[in-house]
Amino acid sequence: MNKKNILVGQSGGPTAVINGSLYGVICEGARHSDAVGCVYGMINGIEGFLADSYMNLSETLSDDDLELLRLTPAAYLGSCRFKLPENLSDSFYRVLFEKLERLDIGYFFYIGGNDSMDTVSKLSRYAVQIKSPIRFIGIPKTIDNDLVLTDHTPGYGSAARYVAASVREIALDASVYQQKSVTIVEIMGRHAGWLTAASALARKEAGDNPLLIYLPEAPFELAQFNDDLKKAFEKTANVIVCVSEGIRDHGGRFICEYSTEAQVDTFGHKMLAGCGKILENYVRNQFGVKVRSVELNVNQRCSGLTVSGTDLNEAEMAGRFGVQAALDGHTGQMVAFERETDTAASEPVHAAAAVSNAADLGAASASCVKHRNTVYKIHPVLKDVNLICNQEKKVPAEWITKNGTDVSDDFLAYSQPLIQGDVSHIMENGLPKYLYRK
Amino acid sequence: MNKKNILVGQSGGPTAVINGSLYGVICEGARHSDAVGCVYGMINGIEGFLADSYMNLSETLSDDDLELLRLTPAAYLGSCRFKLPENLSDSFYRVLFEKLERLDIGYFFYIGGNDSMDTVSKLSRYAVQIKSPIRFIGIPKTIDNDLVLTDHTPGYGSAARYVAASVREIALDASVYQQKSVTIVEIMGRHAGWLTAASALARKEAGDNPLLIYLPEAPFELAQFNDDLKKAFEKTANVIVCVSEGIRDHGGRFICEYSTEAQVDTFGHKMLAGCGKILENYVRNQFGVKVRSVELNVNQRCSGLTVSGTDLNEAEMAGRFGVQAALDGHTGQMVAFERETDTAASEPVHAAAAVSNAADLGAASASCVKHRNTVYKIHPVLKDVNLICNQEKKVPAEWITKNGTDVSDDFLAYSQPLIQGDVSHIMENGLPKYLYRK
Repeated sequence: MNKKNILVGQSGGPTAVINGSLYGVICEGARHSDAVGCVYGMINGIEGFLADSYMNLSETLSDDDLELLRLTPAAYLGSCRFKLPENLSDSFYRVLFEKLERLDIGYFFYIGGNDSMDTVSKLSRYAVQIKSPIRFIGIPKTIDNDLVLTDHTPGYGSAARYVAASVREIALDASVYQQKSVTIVEIMGRHAGWLTAASALARKEAGDNPLLIYLPEAPFELAQFNDDLKKAFEKTANVIVCVSEGIRDHGGRFICEYSTEAQVDTFGHKMLAGCGKILENYVRNQFGVKVRSVELNVNQRCSGLTVSGTDLNEAEMAGRFGVQAALDGHTGQMVAFERETDTAASEPVHAAAAVSNAADLGAASASCVKHRNTVYKIHPVLKDVNLICNQEKKVPAEWITKNGTDVSDDFLAYSQPLIQGDVSHIMENGLPKYLYRK
Repeated sequence: MNKKNILVGQSGGPTAVINGSLYGVICEGARHSDAVGCVYGMINGIEGFLADSYMNLSETLSDDDLELLRLTPAAYLGSCRFKLPENLSDSFYRVLFEKLERLDIGYFFYIGGNDSMDTVSKLSRYAVQIKSPIRFIGIPKTIDNDLVLTDHTPGYGSAARYVAASVREIALDASVYQQKSVTIVEIMGRHAGWLTAASALARKEAGDNPLLIYLPEAPFELAQFNDDLKKAFEKTANVIVCVSEGIRDHGGRFICEYSTEAQVDTFGHKMLAGCGKILENYVRNQFGVKVRSVELNVNQRCSGLTVSGTDLNEAEMAGRFGVQAALDGHTGQMVAFERETDTAASEPVHAAAAVSNAADLGAASASCVKHRNTVYKIHPVLKDVNLICNQEKKVPAEWITKNGTDVSDDFLAYSQPLIQGDVSHIMENGLPKYLYRK
């Protein structure tokens, strides 16, 4: 068999487990030394690669490095936000494919979200057009969990765990004083509320804080919020409100845009505020109670210490399965997850049989976690990347309850398995040790 | 021996290990069943106790509850901010002591910071005045690390670990893109910069991000910041700046006050912003680069998952040592920590001999951790609470380096042992399980 090299890149926003998928690609590539030469990594995605910025990962990384890589959040190879030309006749594609051929690339993997799948779609279509044998596979990654045709997306489980753990601790913190208070937690997810919904996992029991959860999928009105808060105060003195950064009113206006040009600093510069700050101000003026807004910010997407073991394993599985699929001849596909719906089934299902070497799948086999007397089982499949890019999966309307202030038990059953499982961290001087690109 | 009861309370802001000290008081009280009847807890501190809000901890908490209590952040008993009358002739004291006598209290413990030590000071002086035999002991607690006469304060190590781990991850996250960027991390500590200084522990090596660290102990000027940032950009494209919430200019004006009345929301209400937001705005307008501010907010003081094992053990030790000291007849004292200065010493020193039962100290003995070829050793002592309350320990000027933009190696050597040691968490459904007051 004529050996070909792998090229792998990372794109879009960081997550806690995107390097888990990179680890999966590298290790699975090494396992197939009959067909794979070496694994190159694009530095700063396709944008960097176009400027000839790449590295030989097979040569550079020791076994110890690989173990660290798996546990390192953010994106080891660096990232980019770069949209490929719509017109496949653009000279961009010719130049890029010349570079791929010069490195003798046979398998191209791009780990990312929506926009990255758009890249995989265009490159695979161009390859068909010019009859290039290079195979293009997308490995899903996003904390937003907004990719269609997959049960969920690597990166979401860890971010959801960070959100749930942080909100649980914020609620504890807020409960310490007797005086009435409102704490508004602003959570990432501009168009889809999956991550904000995960704040419901913070509850120690049903009916507990966070008492109010607002997703971008349901319109948000201040008058209704005012009523909701009054009702919440009937239950507890310390109300926790979780809001998506992207909540909008009936007219479609973002709440974070409820500020005026008059908001300036001492030099006359306009100040930007998130919706948490806007609501904090609103509550302070309407209720006269102690109020604080907490923006969870970038740590929710890059926290290594709260990584979900399930998420990390699945990220690796996605990388490995992608390599197997490419070796098996697939292209223009994204690795997706399917969940077994028969929760009573007691045998793990090895459903990765779509790839040729099903008998030897290693970590790319089905993931199976026992949870609350139901068995959570997932297996990787391939989906046409053209049906995925430029789509957005929202939280279903039937999972948004209590007049847009809560999520259903179905959402909890869906999300709870994704935040399970601890990870053994490699520590150094009291802090997690990570791998840095030289 | 005539048995007396213990009364214990928590006061001031939450920390991740204040319940570790409460655990220490309860367990040490139980160990001395010859002298101690039961342990009562004030609910919401002395303010709650005055309203007859208290609970019998000896009866209420099972062994399993106690293990959970030790690992639960915030303040199990609730807290208050309540200043006792300056005039010891005030009827407040008579009323309070009647309540103490009604519960047959012999030993009073207050876990808190500066203000709580003021409470211990006043109560112990009043007791002397009326010849009450009740003994009053302060157990130190504050993430700010600003109590005098002690090497450091329980609560600081865990908060410092959270800050260091978070800043390390924020730096990783920011390094993912090629474009120039500034990330400003706002850290708690209005008057003392101990916690902000701990951001230096985030570095993987010297000279690494965070490149700029500003403490409230050194004046902050925007023009100098502008120069500092230009120099930082010569080293890296992605600059991390860590600032204390309390940074001030030469005139003593807080940077967070660099906003105008014109800052209003859409309803004309004034908006409040932290110094991180002010600096974010300044950088955006002066440098035109990508800029983000991250306020670590309440999670830095209440994160259970990043608790330092050393900090938790010492918090418990402080509680246990306080009980021993009270039983031994001491009053009007705070438990403090002394660090062994002979780092070459190889034998742990059991220096808690100041208390009577030194042979049987259990967890209240010296704490000894080997760290970077030096041995970190600490032992508890008693200090006159009157010399501690209403004082503030700042970061020494000689530990602030590089024209007020960094901290010295001496600070690193001081703080590094405090963030060491992992804790076995009790997990449930992927999240840490905590103890809640019914």
